[in-house]
Amino acid sequence: MTETLAIRPTDAAKDSGALIADMGARARAAAVRLAGAPTADKAKALVEAAKAIRARAAAILAANAEDVARAQANGLTAAMIDRLTLDPARLEGVAAGLEAVAALPDPVGQRIDETRRPNGLLLQRVRVPLGVIGIIYESRPNVTADAGALSLMSGNACILRGGSEATASNRAIHAALLDGIRAAGLPEDAIQLVPTTDRAAVGAMLAAQGLIDIIVPRGGKSLVARVQDEARVPVLAHLDGIVHLYIDRAADPAKAVPLAVNAKMRRTGVCGATETLLIDRAYGDPATIVGALVEAGCEVRGDADARAIDDRVLPAADSDWDCEYLDSILSVAIVDGVDGAMAHIARHSSHHTDAIVTEDQPTADRFLAGVDSAIVMHNASTQFADGGEFGLGAEIGISTGRLHARGPVALEGLTTYKWLVRGEGQLRP
Amino acid sequence: MTETLAIRPTDAAKDSGALIADMGARARAAAVRLAGAPTADKAKALVEAAKAIRARAAAILAANAEDVARAQANGLTAAMIDRLTLDPARLEGVAAGLEAVAALPDPVGQRIDETRRPNGLLLQRVRVPLGVIGIIYESRPNVTADAGALSLMSGNACILRGGSEATASNRAIHAALLDGIRAAGLPEDAIQLVPTTDRAAVGAMLAAQGLIDIIVPRGGKSLVARVQDEARVPVLAHLDGIVHLYIDRAADPAKAVPLAVNAKMRRTGVCGATETLLIDRAYGDPATIVGALVEAGCEVRGDADARAIDDRVLPAADSDWDCEYLDSILSVAIVDGVDGAMAHIARHSSHHTDAIVTEDQPTADRFLAGVDSAIVMHNASTQFADGGEFGLGAEIGISTGRLHARGPVALEGLTTYKWLVRGEGQLRP
Repeated sequence: MTETLAIRPTDAAKDSGALIADMGARARAAAVRLAGAPTADKAKALVEAAKAIRARAAAILAANAEDVARAQANGLTAAMIDRLTLDPARLEGVAAGLEAVAALPDPVGQRIDETRRPNGLLLQRVRVPLGVIGIIYESRPNVTADAGALSLMSGNACILRGGSEATASNRAIHAALLDGIRAAGLPEDAIQLVPTTDRAAVGAMLAAQGLIDIIVPRGGKSLVARVQDEARVPVLAHLDGIVHLYIDRAADPAKAVPLAVNAKMRRTGVCGATETLLIDRAYGDPATIVGALVEAGCEVRGDADARAIDDRVLPAADSDWDCEYLDSILSVAIVDGVDGAMAHIARHSSHHTDAIVTEDQPTADRFLAGVDSAIVMHNASTQFADGGEFGLGAEIGISTGRLHARGPVALEGLTTYKWLVRGEGQLRP
Repeated sequence: MTETLAIRPTDAAKDSGALIADMGARARAAAVRLAGAPTADKAKALVEAAKAIRARAAAILAANAEDVARAQANGLTAAMIDRLTLDPARLEGVAAGLEAVAALPDPVGQRIDETRRPNGLLLQRVRVPLGVIGIIYESRPNVTADAGALSLMSGNACILRGGSEATASNRAIHAALLDGIRAAGLPEDAIQLVPTTDRAAVGAMLAAQGLIDIIVPRGGKSLVARVQDEARVPVLAHLDGIVHLYIDRAADPAKAVPLAVNAKMRRTGVCGATETLLIDRAYGDPATIVGALVEAGCEVRGDADARAIDDRVLPAADSDWDCEYLDSILSVAIVDGVDGAMAHIARHSSHHTDAIVTEDQPTADRFLAGVDSAIVMHNASTQFADGGEFGLGAEIGISTGRLHARGPVALEGLTTYKWLVRGEGQLRP
């Protein structure tokens, strides 16, 4: 009985606004309880949810097969169907992901700093949950578990709104999460799934100031752009990953060539994939780098100087410098040293990740200090731009905004802090 | 010549949108230079600005006298005229404030944390400026100096939009700030003053996504509400200070009585002033507390139980529990222990500051953990809710929002961070 509560609107919640208001109020009540929940209880909920994912595997895969069949009938693209599809290995990945989040250090209650004032007052800043998180995503059903787990472990209630094509899969996974929450004695409204695929529900979430503390969009550019455009609630999001790799004159070719190939070609569809290669005019052997990329199957588009290096380089249009290809395509520009690289990056970067390859430490330090991006790297592949690779255990996204959290966001980014002031009766003069 | 640039729109900037776009672009260029400015240069600019305030005192006071005369002719309230008025002592306070900010530790470049990954990558989070700060304020001309100084010292460019009634004063103070900036060789566009009092300029600032990174409103409730309502740029603001002081059964009367009087009556117009007193039904001597408040000149409005304590207590209406009086008025409710207090606070607090008075540490700890406000105090006057009292040296405001910065916001709150990744050629497998 209780299980259906979270996925079926009450009579009072017939339209989207009322639905989200109702879910928001229940989320707030759950958030109050979660804020004080012991780490062990939150971890138990996730470990039990992982067990439930495994126990319910057949039902989840059957629900997913329904979604996939409907998606095929509706003519969704192969890429969308791939993102939607679960198989036993992917589902085990979902369960293992829940266990991994359960094992992360709990940020709630951590002391950020402490000061004793001359009048004896003791000031402490301690981490507390943000409150209620709204997550709006597309076809990947694993986000239901990932985002739910990160919210719960950081002491937040969440309202999940998945893509309509994944409805059955999301409900089946959500049921497993509720098993875990119940087993740990935590409030079921900790993780709620919006029961309608009506797009108006997304609008109601974006307008839910006071009910939802932060919105996290997970999906393609058009979803994120709509969310950023419409939201009255603060949004934690990245829109583009126009990532640059700069090969300085003092780069070691033995590092530069494999870094360029790895940064671009390891996986071309991730936001940390390099989209523009900048090569110092004074770098000795640009031809080997460009050749290695072409031979790795990359289409290279360049400015006139880059085309002079290798006749397989196609001409770049102006728009290439602002393009996130997410594909085996790379733009290459020849620049005048680190200043030229930094000027190009300032003009075209999406402030996600940018990197320099050089053996000259002062040049590296100038680049690290001067490039205003969430992540700035020296002699490392831009494909490391990932919460897991950063040791955060998981990530709810990579923020290219400047406020609150920047770069990979995991548990800590889903918290805020409060000031505790401990006195012995001090009066302010 | 250069001085007038910052306060006179160019031909290209005839309407507010174009004006703010132009100022925003110049602010962004200045912000890039400020982000890398040495601490000594920023401090020098402020120390030299303080000297210029003193050197230009006669001109500033004359400009202020113009503003005050116009305000009187326009029939502004005495309170508004008081906020507007400068005298030699207040102006010396402005100069000293600049010097105090110059002496604060520079947050820019501070290392937040550092991790070495198993693959050898070194990850560091370092503080960097937010970028461009828009500050919208009312009649107090000292905000021009305070807010400009905090922005500059934290490496940010700022766009200041003061109240129309303070135009001449603001321009005169701004000229002194520009003296300091020039003396330190920093870009003049670091601190720009909007040259028009057209209200449309405020709208253009609130809509300036990508040009202005954060808006800080400084002023009364209607200004802050308008800003929060219209802004597309993130806002750092507090709307209300509905502050509670709870006297627990285990409170020491020798602390409780003076704390209640100080928390309410020290200054009634500040946001940290207590507006509602909650008294535990089991507290032994509520009459002494209520009597002390009445005798201190406070109008006390209470629920039925509070009125039974002292017949000078007036009846409270429902609206009293949600009212920020900012005056010598207090609402008093009798509650059932710390749970009753926390329930009342959860319903009525504006999440600014709430405090408990008790000698029982477990009760204090429950209150500190359970009350979800920016500042939660134990055995201290709520009037300590202030950046200066917290040792931050100054404050640009007290945030009651949950994201980015909470409670008193000074230099650190005007920064964000970036991730530096230092490698030796690591490829992602």
